[in-house]
Amino acid sequence: MNLVIDVGNTSIKFGVFDLEVIKWKTTSNKHGFLQTLDEISKTFPSIENCIISSVANLSKEHLSKLEERFNVLRLNHQTKVPFINRYATPQTLGIDRIALMSAASFQHKNKNVLVIDAGTCITYDFINSENEYLGGAISPGIAMRYKSLHTFTDKLPLLEKAHPNSYIGNNTANAIHSGIVKAVLFEIDGYIAEYKKENENLTVILTGGDTHFLRDSIKNDIFANSNFLLEGLNHILEYNKHSCLEK
Amino acid sequence: MNLVIDVGNTSIKFGVFDLEVIKWKTTSNKHGFLQTLDEISKTFPSIENCIISSVANLSKEHLSKLEERFNVLRLNHQTKVPFINRYATPQTLGIDRIALMSAASFQHKNKNVLVIDAGTCITYDFINSENEYLGGAISPGIAMRYKSLHTFTDKLPLLEKAHPNSYIGNNTANAIHSGIVKAVLFEIDGYIAEYKKENENLTVILTGGDTHFLRDSIKNDIFANSNFLLEGLNHILEYNKHSCLEK
Repeated sequence: MNLVIDVGNTSIKFGVFDLEVIKWKTTSNKHGFLQTLDEISKTFPSIENCIISSVANLSKEHLSKLEERFNVLRLNHQTKVPFINRYATPQTLGIDRIALMSAASFQHKNKNVLVIDAGTCITYDFINSENEYLGGAISPGIAMRYKSLHTFTDKLPLLEKAHPNSYIGNNTANAIHSGIVKAVLFEIDGYIAEYKKENENLTVILTGGDTHFLRDSIKNDIFANSNFLLEGLNHILEYNKHSCLEK
Repeated sequence: MNLVIDVGNTSIKFGVFDLEVIKWKTTSNKHGFLQTLDEISKTFPSIENCIISSVANLSKEHLSKLEERFNVLRLNHQTKVPFINRYATPQTLGIDRIALMSAASFQHKNKNVLVIDAGTCITYDFINSENEYLGGAISPGIAMRYKSLHTFTDKLPLLEKAHPNSYIGNNTANAIHSGIVKAVLFEIDGYIAEYKKENENLTVILTGGDTHFLRDSIKNDIFANSNFLLEGLNHILEYNKHSCLEK
């Protein structure tokens, strides 16, 4: 079995995989790291291999605890990935986007795939039917837009995200909900339409923290999959198992 | 003649109108206020009336200098406006948006008009052919989006705005330019399409600081008019002249 760990700035996501199937997942903060690790080791004693997305936010102590127990693959820009990277500056491509493209490459072989990750930022990433990653786009995420309207103006309030009652907001709150949530939907459907113009049979995956918030309002057909990033990390681990992880 | 002054947080815009035609305009900061005023008085001695959009950022000294020379109308939420305000909370409607709707009401009588002001924020405001203002939307402006990606993430750089070379960005900078500029265009064309569904013969006005940057990339037919807000203030001044400004 595999343990997959996605270390973010504030939270750490854990996924336990049996081959390609996710069996269990949880989220902790840094302080809960060791406790979560103990629970996982007890519950799934057959875990042998582990992939970790980023060690930047992980202490040396936590990392060595991991390495005591498992064969650990630290994902970085030198890690072998199962797609051809046509990004002009592959060393600047975010680790998250590498994981997402690995999932797209494994799960939708020989398809044109657009992956939309609606999280802190909204990232758009495209891999074509030749298994070539071409690039994409990065825009501010939904929470970031609410925060920016409040932070960078004098008068606008900080609101919790909500779907607008109409695209014509009839007070400040509804005008902001429209200008953020409705606008993000225009953006997502706009990108999908643009990719579809040039790529027949486009498969669209929606993932990230705002997946459930957005999925039913997108006009185009999409696959919503909150686990896509963890699945991508697991695919990279499987892909590298024989070359990198032998004891 | 009329002097129209739009006081923003950082800059102050001046417009000199002869009836409905703008004859001259300039921008100053707070320190240049009195000098600009002297120049305007000398060049246009026939100015009698003045409207000022917001006194929040103007010193008492500057305001009294204005009032020594002209009949001054201070625009606020009690000022008579030439349209029917259906906003649920009219006292929270920004002064800028009141001025834009006044311009739309005067210049496009009995038309369905969408005004898009692409500035610090992007505001969308709609007035129907019955001269009723119904509301709109507020989203982060282009510069604000660049700033937010840099401020609210660890790794993304702060870039100058630029049109992307493709909607598929092949490095971090191009991915950000696409995710901001291309996405704003999807948003603008998305709103226009949505308004057109329900309103035949929609007139669309684009104004604000990013007018020239965006105008040629918008798919729908629009009127680009950088002076629309100043023209709206002038319309409000004309509308209120006889009732409020007689000495």
